Amino acid sequence: MTTSFQHIDGGVCAPQKFLASAVSCGIKNPTADRLDMALITSELPCVSAGTFTTNKVKAAPVRVSQSNLRSNSIQAIIANSGNANCCTGTVGMADAKTMCKDIAKLLKLTPKQIGVCSTGVIGLPMPMSRVTPKFDELVNDLSPNKGHDVARAIMTSDTRPKEIAITFEIGGKQVRIGACAKGAGMISPAMATMLCFITTDMKIAQEDLQKATLEAVEHSFNRITIDGDMSTNDTVLVLANGAAGNKLSKTNNKEFADALNYVMLKMAQSLVSDGERVTKFVTVKIKGARHHADAKKAAEAVAKSALVKSSWNGNDPNWGRIIHAVGYSRARMLEEHTDIYIDEHVICKGGLQADTPMDLLREVVANPAFTVTIDLNLGSAEYEMYTSDLSPEYIDFNRSEYAYWKQARKDGLV
Amino acid sequence: MTTSFQHIDGGVCAPQKFLASAVSCGIKNPTADRLDMALITSELPCVSAGTFTTNKVKAAPVRVSQSNLRSNSIQAIIANSGNANCCTGTVGMADAKTMCKDIAKLLKLTPKQIGVCSTGVIGLPMPMSRVTPKFDELVNDLSPNKGHDVARAIMTSDTRPKEIAITFEIGGKQVRIGACAKGAGMISPAMATMLCFITTDMKIAQEDLQKATLEAVEHSFNRITIDGDMSTNDTVLVLANGAAGNKLSKTNNKEFADALNYVMLKMAQSLVSDGERVTKFVTVKIKGARHHADAKKAAEAVAKSALVKSSWNGNDPNWGRIIHAVGYSRARMLEEHTDIYIDEHVICKGGLQADTPMDLLREVVANPAFTVTIDLNLGSAEYEMYTSDLSPEYIDFNRSEYAYWKQARKDGLV
Repeated sequence: MTTSFQHIDGGVCAPQKFLASAVSCGIKNPTADRLDMALITSELPCVSAGTFTTNKVKAAPVRVSQSNLRSNSIQAIIANSGNANCCTGTVGMADAKTMCKDIAKLLKLTPKQIGVCSTGVIGLPMPMSRVTPKFDELVNDLSPNKGHDVARAIMTSDTRPKEIAITFEIGGKQVRIGACAKGAGMISPAMATMLCFITTDMKIAQEDLQKATLEAVEHSFNRITIDGDMSTNDTVLVLANGAAGNKLSKTNNKEFADALNYVMLKMAQSLVSDGERVTKFVTVKIKGARHHADAKKAAEAVAKSALVKSSWNGNDPNWGRIIHAVGYSRARMLEEHTDIYIDEHVICKGGLQADTPMDLLREVVANPAFTVTIDLNLGSAEYEMYTSDLSPEYIDFNRSEYAYWKQARKDGLV
Repeated sequence: MTTSFQHIDGGVCAPQKFLASAVSCGIKNPTADRLDMALITSELPCVSAGTFTTNKVKAAPVRVSQSNLRSNSIQAIIANSGNANCCTGTVGMADAKTMCKDIAKLLKLTPKQIGVCSTGVIGLPMPMSRVTPKFDELVNDLSPNKGHDVARAIMTSDTRPKEIAITFEIGGKQVRIGACAKGAGMISPAMATMLCFITTDMKIAQEDLQKATLEAVEHSFNRITIDGDMSTNDTVLVLANGAAGNKLSKTNNKEFADALNYVMLKMAQSLVSDGERVTKFVTVKIKGARHHADAKKAAEAVAKSALVKSSWNGNDPNWGRIIHAVGYSRARMLEEHTDIYIDEHVICKGGLQADTPMDLLREVVANPAFTVTIDLNLGSAEYEMYTSDLSPEYIDFNRSEYAYWKQARKDGLV
């Protein structure tokens, strides 16, 4: 993970033989010209991998994409923002399948080769009468230069597009990975989803790609929290078309896995930085836990505590709230063994206030990014999470989605 | 629980032979004359029961009271607000024990007969130089008319005192229960604690009192949430002095347990209503769960979801967020079986938007109190919780406790 990678332009189109396009269907807003539908496709057959939300309420596109991924390799992704197509019953399932079928026909693929993703408000049917008529334009506009448009088209409450592309050598061949992602409330914002699409021209077997994907997700997206709410639509899809022409080998796979880890971690961290009304990016690091499970429980309790996150919003280096969250996390801990650091400065030593001047600590917590390290001093297990503050503006922003319902009413959908 | 009880005045002094007093020690604010130290005592020997926080970080007074309760019957309670005496190490333990010892001496009891409770900011030593000199005044002022002063003295971020007293007949004898409690952020507010003191003149054996206490807490304080953070100081103490002169019997105990349930539920609900910057009291009722554990998981997920609570703050009858929280709760559920009601109005039927006019539902959610019922239609288990909305003002209120640290600095305590 310490390897340095060369960053390049192009987002999901940076890897060879990937094309993309994006259009406005008026899903986000029927009267404003905002990109809300995107297409990514490979000119070559792909192997593919993915991970999906574990919420028992799964959006229709999640169910369809999961089924397609199980039976086949996905070669193209159709994605929309503004509507999650979730809690939409048989109508929603039919809509998601129609999106796959219509796009497959235009791309001369089978419906099972299409991944479909939606992100937005829950419980309202897709305005399909505005969606399908745009598919011709979407396919005609496909280009190797439109990765950036895809990153913009999947945004909901995000304030900026999130994308990355890197290149590196594997076995004498130049390999590229491109990615884009959207947040922006945890993984469960007002708009209710996080999506990440990753393309690569790496040549790799399907099972190795799936293994690398699961591992990278475990170290990135599964370690972020903004508001603690797990969405119904979370999806990570990885498409690999082999255009780089590298040899298949274990060593090559290992190097690729490192690069994939790097890309996913950057994307996951950028989701937190652009979380809804977030002002601080905070790394919570647990050290000295008895077991991995304890380290994880302690990190999650601190990273999700409303009181801890409120104090960060107020630049308050409040270690009492941090240790109290560790205390109720169910992780093994002894108050008198616990040390807490803000960046490199100790604020709590053996469960008591340390000597570091509070005014200095206050300055550190006022920074846009800092690390809180909690050393339980009971063992050697560690765990790291990425979280944010919680602001009055977050609540204010999430007070109502009623306008979406009113639009759906106007559209005759409810 | 459907019995109606006659409400009377007097709070914790309503039961016979209980006395109380309260003074200002300047713990909350050295320059303002605000009550922040209270004493409750019985003129007769008591049996006592209690429950305490399960947080592994326990305040010194919690440890001392737990130990005293284990070895003895508590006959008097000394309690302060403004400082939690938590994460204060050996100094904090010595301070809590000193409070017991000094009060016991003045009351002619043993230190083990005293319950000690503190509520306020974590991590700062008690300003004992301002505390112990007030004990003489506290004991001299003891009176049967000062229950209300105790309710005021234990307030921190509460906006109003919370107390109740009822009377009822058991086996031909008039019995009384009095109680006071404080919040106000969950059970983990800015000031970090919830306390509830209950007095009764019921004659009851210690083990029966403890059993009734545990049951009543399970149906009241263990079912409320404001911000999901469990405090380090939560304490419920029940003192019974037998002055009512009733006979000891199983039937009498059963009737007393009902009354105790009623009192604790009222106190718990009043904590939620007066939660920090709360505008709505919401009952979350799960029905039709396969098992009790499932019903509890589903209720907790909904009652604690930041997104659900934000929508209530905005008068948004957002059922999509409610079902999404049930979905990630790990309770068995099937989207297509799930019905959701706001008061008696169905908003989601079989996982889909129901026909009830949204404008009507919006009016219901704008009320200061309403019930959200989620019927999983998978079995017959039920669970009920009491929660609130989450407001921008809550975050704003909890952004900083730095002023407390500055005062402690001025006092030479840190």
